[in-house]
Order: sequence, then C-alpha cells, then structure tokens
Amino acid sequence: MKTIKVGLVGFGTIGTGVAKLLLLEKERICKRTGCDVQLVKIVDLDTTRDRGIQLPEGMLSADYHDILNDPEISLVVQLIGGTGVERTIMLEMIEAGKNIVTANKALLATYGEEIFCAARKKGVSVAFEAAVGGGIPIIAAISESLAANEIESIHAILNGTCNFILSNMEEHGSDYAPTLKEAQRLGFAEANPAMDVEGSDTAQKLSILSHIAFGVHLDWKDIPKVGIETVSGTDFRYAKLLGYSIKLLAIANRLRSENGAPDKLELSVCPTMVKKGSPIAAVSGAYNAVSVIGDAVEHSFYYGKGAGELPTASAVVADVIDTIVGRTKITFDTLDLWNPEKPAENIEIAKAADVTGRYYLRVMVEDRLGVIADLADILSKAGISICSCVQENSNDNIIPIIIMTHETTEGAILGAIGSINQLDCVVNETVRMRIYG
Amino acid sequence: MKTIKVGLVGFGTIGTGVAKLLLLEKERICKRTGCDVQLVKIVDLDTTRDRGIQLPEGMLSADYHDILNDPEISLVVQLIGGTGVERTIMLEMIEAGKNIVTANKALLATYGEEIFCAARKKGVSVAFEAAVGGGIPIIAAISESLAANEIESIHAILNGTCNFILSNMEEHGSDYAPTLKEAQRLGFAEANPAMDVEGSDTAQKLSILSHIAFGVHLDWKDIPKVGIETVSGTDFRYAKLLGYSIKLLAIANRLRSENGAPDKLELSVCPTMVKKGSPIAAVSGAYNAVSVIGDAVEHSFYYGKGAGELPTASAVVADVIDTIVGRTKITFDTLDLWNPEKPAENIEIAKAADVTGRYYLRVMVEDRLGVIADLADILSKAGISICSCVQENSNDNIIPIIIMTHETTEGAILGAIGSINQLDCVVNETVRMRIYG
Repeated sequence: MKTIKVGLVGFGTIGTGVAKLLLLEKERICKRTGCDVQLVKIVDLDTTRDRGIQLPEGMLSADYHDILNDPEISLVVQLIGGTGVERTIMLEMIEAGKNIVTANKALLATYGEEIFCAARKKGVSVAFEAAVGGGIPIIAAISESLAANEIESIHAILNGTCNFILSNMEEHGSDYAPTLKEAQRLGFAEANPAMDVEGSDTAQKLSILSHIAFGVHLDWKDIPKVGIETVSGTDFRYAKLLGYSIKLLAIANRLRSENGAPDKLELSVCPTMVKKGSPIAAVSGAYNAVSVIGDAVEHSFYYGKGAGELPTASAVVADVIDTIVGRTKITFDTLDLWNPEKPAENIEIAKAADVTGRYYLRVMVEDRLGVIADLADILSKAGISICSCVQENSNDNIIPIIIMTHETTEGAILGAIGSINQLDCVVNETVRMRIYG
Repeated sequence: MKTIKVGLVGFGTIGTGVAKLLLLEKERICKRTGCDVQLVKIVDLDTTRDRGIQLPEGMLSADYHDILNDPEISLVVQLIGGTGVERTIMLEMIEAGKNIVTANKALLATYGEEIFCAARKKGVSVAFEAAVGGGIPIIAAISESLAANEIESIHAILNGTCNFILSNMEEHGSDYAPTLKEAQRLGFAEANPAMDVEGSDTAQKLSILSHIAFGVHLDWKDIPKVGIETVSGTDFRYAKLLGYSIKLLAIANRLRSENGAPDKLELSVCPTMVKKGSPIAAVSGAYNAVSVIGDAVEHSFYYGKGAGELPTASAVVADVIDTIVGRTKITFDTLDLWNPEKPAENIEIAKAADVTGRYYLRVMVEDRLGVIADLADILSKAGISICSCVQENSNDNIIPIIIMTHETTEGAILGAIGSINQLDCVVNETVRMRIYG
C-alpha cells in the first residue's frame, strides 16, 4: 500500500477537525484512497492549547518550514486565514512541489490567479471545496456535476454568522445589536465580526463561485455589498406581514444578450427579502445554502452546515481524498481556473449601478403630512415604479414608511436614497434590501 | 484535440435531452473535456417519431449492433429502461470494451454485481449519476464529496410521480384516484403507474444509494415497502392539523452497535408524515430531494428535478464528461462497487420486522362505543405505546380513528394491524404511515 504523507498548517477549529478525521478515522481514509494516509506534521503558532485530541510526540510545531522542507510531505492542508503570510506560505509550499488543500477563501478571492498560475507551473493542484459553503459540496457540484450546464443564476446564503443573527432576530423579534452580542457569546460570531456582518466574507465566496460558474475574472471588492447591521426588528415585522424572510443573499445572475453580444453578469451581496415557501427561505441558524439554476438541470439546491469543526473538515478531507486518488488533478487541469491566458467567456460583469432588481426601502421619518408625496416624487423622478407603500398609524413621532418597488437598477435606487436621506423629515439613513421570489 | 465517439442507446425523453446537449451544445462539452466529443450513433426501435431535434443523415438506427460493432465508439450512453434485453445489451457493450453511462436503476439494482464485475474484468467503467435523483448529483455527493464521512442516515424523496401526486392531494385536498388520473393526463405518471406508486422504483433507488453509502449488498425486493395508493384526503387533513406533510420517503438508517458488533441498517419505503419546517417537507411537485446525515458533515440536503428531459440529461452528460476526462474510472476503481470479493462492511441489514419507527395509523370503523378501547387493547398487547388518539365527532356511520404511536417495530405494527383489521367494526384495511421529524 502506497504511503502519502500529509502536513497541516493551521490547528484552529477546522484544523482540529481535520486532524481528528485523519488520525482517528485513519482506517476509513485508507479504505477510500487505497493508500496509507499519514498526517505527519501540524504547524500552528499556538503549540500549547488543548484541542481535545492527543497528538503523537513531535507532531506539533510552530515552524512551517518543518513541512516545507520535508520532501516526503506531498500534500499540504493549509487552514490559516488571511492574505499576508498565508500567501507567502502557500506559494512556498507550491514552489516546493506540494499539492494544496485549503479553506482560505480570502486568499483565493484575492490572489487566485497568482496561486493557480504558480501551481500550474509546478504541476501541482489546489483544492478548495471547504472555502465556500463549509460542508456543502458546492464547488464539486458546479465544476463537475453541473458541467453539462451553462449556469443561469446562483442565489446563496454563504455566511453562517449572518444567517444565525438574522434567524434569531426573526425568531425572537429582537434587534440587531443584542442578537450580535448573543451570537458572540455563543461562539457564532467573532469578537470583531466586521468581515462577516459587512458582507465581505460573502462577497469573497461569491467571487469564487462566479469565477467557476461563469468564467469571469473579478475583484471581490467590486461586488456591490450591503451588510446586515441596518436590518431591524421592524424590517422583520414587515417581512412577515408580506410573506418574506430576510437573508443575506449572494446573488449572481446571468442576463442573456442577443446577437452574440456578451451576456451580463449581475452580482450583489445584500440583505434580501426571500419569499417564504422557497427552499432558501427555510434555511435558518448557522446553515448555508446555495440555489443554482442551470440551463439543463433547472433548479437545484444544496444545503448544509456552513462552518464548524467537523462539517468543514468533512469538505477538507474529501479534497484530501480526491487529491490522493487523482480526481483533483484532473479537475484542476480541465477547469483551468484563474488562468489569464485562457480565452474569456462571452460574459461581462454588469456595472454595479446597472444591477437590476426589486427593492424594499424603509424610510424613518417624522410623522407629518405630505411625506409620502415627497418620497413618491423622488422615486418617480428617478424612474422607479412603486409596487406598494405602507405607513402605519402610530403614536410615535418617528415612524417607518415601507416601500416595495418594481424592477429598477441599483444606480437608480442609490440616487433616490441619496435624495430621500436629504429630506428634512427623514431622521435615519434609509434601509434598502433586495426582493427575491 | 482528441476525438471521442459516443453511441446512445435509447432515444426516449432522456435520450433526446442527451442528444440535444451533445449535438447542440457541442462547443460547451468540448471546452469542458478538452476533447472533440462526437455523438455518432443513436439506436432506438422507433426511428420515425419526431423528437424535436434534427439528426444528421444515418445517425439513427434500430440495431444496437451498429454501436456494438463500431470499434471507434468508446463510450455508450444506455438509456433504455428494464432488465431484459437491456441487460444483454449492456453486458455486450462492456464485453466490447466500451465505457458505460446509464440511468437504468432497475438494471443496477437487480444485476449490479454482474454488470460491475464484467466491467472490472474488462477494465471499463460504469457511471450512473442519472439513475438516482435525476438532476441531483447525489451519487457524486455520497461517493466523493462525503467520502470523509461514515453515513448515519438517508431520508429521500426519489420518485417524482409519487411526489407530484401527494403534493397535489395536499394542495387541493383531493383523493388519490382522481389525482393519479390528472397526473397521467399531464404526463407526470405512466399509463401503468405500478412501479412508481407501489414504491418499487423508490426501493430500487434506495438499494443503490444504500450500497454506495453503507457498503451493503441487498436485493431491492427485500426492502419493506408501502405504496401511496392508500393515502387519502383524510390523511392530509390530519397531517395538516398535526403540522406534518406526507411524502413517500425512502429511509436508510444506521443503528450503531456496541463492542464491535455489526451496526444495523434499517431500510424502508413508506408514505411518511414529515414535520413541516424541515427542508424535505417543503419539497413539492415533481422534485426529488435527499437528506443525508454524515458523522462529520452532519445534516446535508440536496434538491432538484427528479425527472424530465434536460434535468436528467444534465446528470447523464456530467457522467459523459467525467468518463472522458478520467474521473469516472478513478471513482469506479476506488469505490469498487458491487464486488463480492471486497471485504464486507461491519453492518447488517435489519430484518424487515425489526425496523423501528413511530407510526401513524388510520383505522376506518363503524361508530360504536368501545372501539378505541378495543384498538388500545390490541396495541398494548403488541407492546406498542400510543402517543395520541383522535376520533372526530361525525354524523357519518363510518369514521376514521387516528392513532400516532411512540417508537415501535415494523413487525409489531404489522401484527397489530392484522388484529385490528379482523375486528368486526373495522371496515377497510388500516392505513399506516411512518412519522419523521
């Protein structure tokens, strides 16, 4: 039986899960690869914390060169987050001829081209199923199982922290700030939750999915994004009334062009009113889900734990197995991702301002006559058609006005919101969400 | 660019979809394989019917020897249903050294061992993603993406016809017979729907999933199954009242044993009360869905069109692509399915009578005093604990008594139902369903 030596960089939550599977379920991994898969070295700056797993003497080290310089280690699982030293380490590992399995979406979303070109040059592969959607095999689904399709759209919940917070707000009728605190207490949100709640993490994952599904090259920072901090209990009350749930949705939507002109790809990350009854509206808690429409398969939907020790480790170890048996290399070669020399697909990324959709607006105003007329006038001048407008009777002086629009553009909505926010009677930044379904 | 010649046996609904993708989307398939993939021959007994696609002169033939005897055809897509001549043709194609892609679940469920042993002997591969779950990549998910897991359970809707009928009964409050007629009129049910509505099709698919997920060898006919013919509008009324939906569920459930004794695998196909709010309860119409729990990934869920020309063709052509690029052969070799020489997994199929679960019973009785006492007595003697029992007031002489049980065994329930059906006051066969969630 062939022996494969594996090194693991990063011994945090997912790293611990991977170590558990590779060490404690060794027999299983051997059976499924036909090889003796040996985890021989784990590197982490913290070499003392108890992770609940007993490692053999000498396996844990603080120096990644212990893996880099061991020529017998042919496969490196890199599970450290960030794009600084992590980039250097990955490029050095590739340069040393090691196959890579990683969950670092920020690194791929930012330096995908550099990393994949280096790997191609060196003849090694990079697998990254765990970078998007945790335990959901969405990378394999799009790049292999749906390979007969041209993808029409992706609508996805890709951040468990945001979905946990939004689900809890919906369930308990609570507001954002206390729910975030509770999520932090329970370990579902980081001490600094900015990357999650502002939508950057979701945008990075969407950029990776978009590259695979549509062949577009893009900077994740160019994806228009709105975070969840502005979503309030009031929004959930209206969502419920109107038959919607609220999710932070990553959207990639192909707009077909005619006469051979390039299709347009609309991208956005935004709190979204999702019609109840659709599978994605039922996704609650720390789960992730991806809804994919392909021109042959039609609607398909994938759901699972978006984070966590063993669910994410499940995806990492699947990549380890795929790499060892040789499937990864085939997929890596045929997909030819992040290759600037590959002929471009006939699709262009729509300008942020041109992205179309229906919108929900919540305008907080001082209650006085004529407010709705003022708002309607601004929207009308921006070319935005109103679908419905609700102003509840209230004893409060500050009241919400809820507007649902017909299809319009992100640019028109942003312009209108700018004008609305300048009205004397408007007391807070106007909240906007997209509407789906 | 390498040329791959493909033959297609079976030019029905799925075959037409496959021909459309291979002929009309040739550029796409070439890009994703790096090969010039040429569909060169289609065989079907009906060579005259218009399938809405223009074939090159001479491509369509009624004689499968046109494919069998063409040494340039290295890949055969076999899409004819049934287990008679279809078995002969597949074995001959394998013997001629051709790689196989098929959607024939009956053939695999019945002759899997013979077919896979023949393919192994000849060094070719058999791919069958489309055999289970139509467009849902559930074979790839279980055999590749979840390879790091030991599977705990599968709960699945695998028959679009049954789900279409049950969804329509639920939505319109209608009974079975008229809904089946409507499904036949709309093309969602065959003229002879027995294989679907009696649960045989579902049991065949469950046997294939169970073989891959749990490594068990089984005859699909041994899976205890109940069809949907006995489900009535009354059942849906009670299901709604109790917060359930009714689905024909295929269930495979691992019961862990201790001290190294083999685990038990419970298998069943039965109309099932599924708690609303779970993803699988929301699956309506002709969709399929599979809920998989793995020991690492925890709960994962896959959803998509279970049938239809292009959705199923999407899975078939994904297999064609996988076969051409070489992924299929790797998976075929490492999984080593239906191999009697492979060491058995430490798991045994539970006897049908020992399969455990909670049950819903609907007993149709003549309204008289003491009926419930009689029923309770029978259940008590069978060791079955009652969770709830409802008997509505009614002016009818014949009334339903609805009983929900606590956990019991299939054997105990069957015994009790036998006794119940012999009571003088019981006017119809007692209807049983399982309860899930």
